[in-house]
Amino acid sequence: MRMKPVPDIVVGRLPLYLRALGQMKAEGNTVTSSHELARRLGISSAQIRKDLSQFGEFGKQGTGYNIAFLQEQIQRILGVDRTWDVAVVGIGDLGRALAHYAGFLQRGFQICALYDNDPAKIGQKVRDLTIQSMDVMGVDIRRKNIRIAMLAVPLSFAQEVADELIKAGVVAILNYAPTSIKAPEGVRVQQIDPALHLQHMTYYIKPD
Amino acid sequence: MRMKPVPDIVVGRLPLYLRALGQMKAEGNTVTSSHELARRLGISSAQIRKDLSQFGEFGKQGTGYNIAFLQEQIQRILGVDRTWDVAVVGIGDLGRALAHYAGFLQRGFQICALYDNDPAKIGQKVRDLTIQSMDVMGVDIRRKNIRIAMLAVPLSFAQEVADELIKAGVVAILNYAPTSIKAPEGVRVQQIDPALHLQHMTYYIKPD
Repeated sequence: MRMKPVPDIVVGRLPLYLRALGQMKAEGNTVTSSHELARRLGISSAQIRKDLSQFGEFGKQGTGYNIAFLQEQIQRILGVDRTWDVAVVGIGDLGRALAHYAGFLQRGFQICALYDNDPAKIGQKVRDLTIQSMDVMGVDIRRKNIRIAMLAVPLSFAQEVADELIKAGVVAILNYAPTSIKAPEGVRVQQIDPALHLQHMTYYIKPD
Repeated sequence: MRMKPVPDIVVGRLPLYLRALGQMKAEGNTVTSSHELARRLGISSAQIRKDLSQFGEFGKQGTGYNIAFLQEQIQRILGVDRTWDVAVVGIGDLGRALAHYAGFLQRGFQICALYDNDPAKIGQKVRDLTIQSMDVMGVDIRRKNIRIAMLAVPLSFAQEVADELIKAGVVAILNYAPTSIKAPEGVRVQQIDPALHLQHMTYYIKPD
């Protein structure tokens, strides 16, 4: 299927399609169309058809897409037709929110380890998970073969902790610290920084 | 300055440049170059020069950029040479984390109102802010002239709450609910959904 590399921007839209399909299914629908997806997502139907066609033939002209089938195919393409173990590092307000967030499981992710370096937090439970010391993080991640981590540590520690995670075998990091993290080839880093989004939007707000 | 519209993807990179400049300044630097920015951000130096040139002349060939000057210029372009009032709606774990996050202020944003519809939470304080009922949200936002909101409510309420915020004068919404929100022209919506980022990355992870 993957004859030539698909542009990363196209890959990045697949999770959006998958989420919309999940919602349509939850609403009781069984078929959809690129037009319906377009309407929900604010992406043109031509773009959606072009994106999906990079991976195969998922619908028939005029009859649209079978939701469950397309959902399964995109899950397979994205590698979320399985459940990935995920570690959360830094159990402040945000790390705790991530640990509690119930929406990951149905989308392919299970939080299975929490680490912090605050002695007052180590040993505490969040849901059914015990917060572990960052001293054992590397060994524990390697032992559990965790490949994905969410990083919610202060800015000044982010690179150092990321380096340790990578050394322990982590290949995908979702970084919540407001700084760019450097990673070697083969390791993916994505970042969530709400201030970036806010600043992007204020560009368009006309002054009062 | 804004002769023709700048592509949104370029606008979206300015906050990244601004953040990197802030870090360089904090590290004690006074000048930088497109190459140094490129190295930090993983964006090509040609792209950075091209992006910045859309807004004016900020550096001299060979001598680079004055960090403080470029920072001020980008702040002005993005409209964050002032402080924006921001409301947080939905004070669960995530809303609380947002309310506590200390990093907004230096980047142009001040959380100034918290709303929830849980009677047990209404009246509680987070930092120096009292959680208010969503019954008074519309009136309160209009009275305070709040233009920006962060939405951390459950998925099933997200569109309804967004509609109410927009009716009250909000023109920029950062949506944390895992669903696409529809907004009329003139209202910007950006979304933070960690599972989207995780699914984007798993595409690249080779199975064990």
